[in-house]
Amino acid sequence: MTVVIIGLGLMGGSLAIALNEVGFSQHIIGVDSNPTHCKKALELNLVNEIRTLDDAVIDADMIIVATPVAASIGIIAQVLDKALDQVVVDLGSTKKELCLNFNTHPKRGNYVSAHPIAGTENSGPKAACSNLYKNKKVVVCEKNLSSDQALSVAIEMFNKIGMSTVFMTPDEHDKHLAYISHLSHISSFALGLTVLDLEKDEKNIFNLAGSGFSSTARLAKSSPEMWNAIIAQNKENVLPALDSYINYLRAFRDDIINSNEKELKIKMTNANKIRKIIKE
Amino acid sequence: MTVVIIGLGLMGGSLAIALNEVGFSQHIIGVDSNPTHCKKALELNLVNEIRTLDDAVIDADMIIVATPVAASIGIIAQVLDKALDQVVVDLGSTKKELCLNFNTHPKRGNYVSAHPIAGTENSGPKAACSNLYKNKKVVVCEKNLSSDQALSVAIEMFNKIGMSTVFMTPDEHDKHLAYISHLSHISSFALGLTVLDLEKDEKNIFNLAGSGFSSTARLAKSSPEMWNAIIAQNKENVLPALDSYINYLRAFRDDIINSNEKELKIKMTNANKIRKIIKE
Repeated sequence: MTVVIIGLGLMGGSLAIALNEVGFSQHIIGVDSNPTHCKKALELNLVNEIRTLDDAVIDADMIIVATPVAASIGIIAQVLDKALDQVVVDLGSTKKELCLNFNTHPKRGNYVSAHPIAGTENSGPKAACSNLYKNKKVVVCEKNLSSDQALSVAIEMFNKIGMSTVFMTPDEHDKHLAYISHLSHISSFALGLTVLDLEKDEKNIFNLAGSGFSSTARLAKSSPEMWNAIIAQNKENVLPALDSYINYLRAFRDDIINSNEKELKIKMTNANKIRKIIKE
Repeated sequence: MTVVIIGLGLMGGSLAIALNEVGFSQHIIGVDSNPTHCKKALELNLVNEIRTLDDAVIDADMIIVATPVAASIGIIAQVLDKALDQVVVDLGSTKKELCLNFNTHPKRGNYVSAHPIAGTENSGPKAACSNLYKNKKVVVCEKNLSSDQALSVAIEMFNKIGMSTVFMTPDEHDKHLAYISHLSHISSFALGLTVLDLEKDEKNIFNLAGSGFSSTARLAKSSPEMWNAIIAQNKENVLPALDSYINYLRAFRDDIINSNEKELKIKMTNANKIRKIIKE
């Protein structure tokens, strides 16, 4: 199978590695608007060749859109307009705006709206890694609007690289992801800024940064372009999640000011229930 | 050398494993007010025997206080009152209140006020692990108040288990730790609570919890008793750190409401500078 991957960053590059490893595709064509990414993707053998989008679509059996979500709508439109029977799968982190845009498109059946719950704080083709998708979930939205053939090929691809599929509406997806992913990123960005401020006055405090700090602040390394677009497209869910988070932090603040150790203990004990979710 | 470890949780238990492994001590006596911890520590061969505090001190060359900080002042006092020439080292996460309490104690020279920057979100003897301290920093406060002999034995111990020493005043220590550790814990506790609230209405969202969420919220599993005491003892530094963090989150919130992507990009790009600290 010839697979075209549009967007050769962490997601697209890691998918290229995985598809090669499991033998799902014999030939991978890369497309990226950034010439440095194209060059790097060839150097790293992520793709067999680089083409323009229009040239790539013609020879493809399957087209993966792995661009930042701000660009995805335009690119999926361009691909679907050119597509004959190719399967088109996007990997974007927000789904509502995307799905709305295509639900009456004449080629909607070719398209599978997916989001692999996988990622790291790194970006670009150099960040691509072999096991990014293994043993992870992938959400597929509006499966009934995809043709049976497109859906089965997309799910087969995700299964082959070790993923299991969860079906959701775009609304459900965007709400849940606001809480369990987008909020974590904002929390890390803000934590990074808070601690960097302190460093302006006090040098070398980072000698002391332990694993707890690294763990909570590592997402502050994430790509601003990518996260600007995700937050903008999921504003309606991100805002209530952020409000709820700020309210809890303010409640902690009040308890600390009032030395209310009893209430702090109740809050921390309740928070411990996260053990049922974070098991490792 | 006979070492007494008071407090057989994550820190004390892991130290016992490390001291055994490097051959620093030939005999380890465990002390813990919790009989279940004592039993478990024996079962896991963390210690050679269990004694009461008073019985243990008599035969010790070195005494490690690895209890939650709320108990440490009382225990260090009890130990120093009984000590002859034993070296007493505490591993607590806050240093100012502790140091203040002992800076005129007649046996202050015996005491080394230390804080290994190492830990996990797990607690109790079962959480003890072999490499907790390896390649980490340990902060030693008020080194000039420790005798040369006590200081050199303590540093030798930390070096042998793979740690390097940083000297700080208790004020500096507590301020820096508020930002790079205590704030991370509060941020995780609040994130855990926010996401657990959502789960009350919407089941199974945790199917989707990815590595980003696990990373930012794992500290929400930490011990409420331990963190209540740390926060209480470091209130004066934790509060400004928390205020600064909430202010950044509110600024993110305002930018999102106003769709101010330019400003969001500036903030996230500044936060990316955390790369110089979190390198892996």
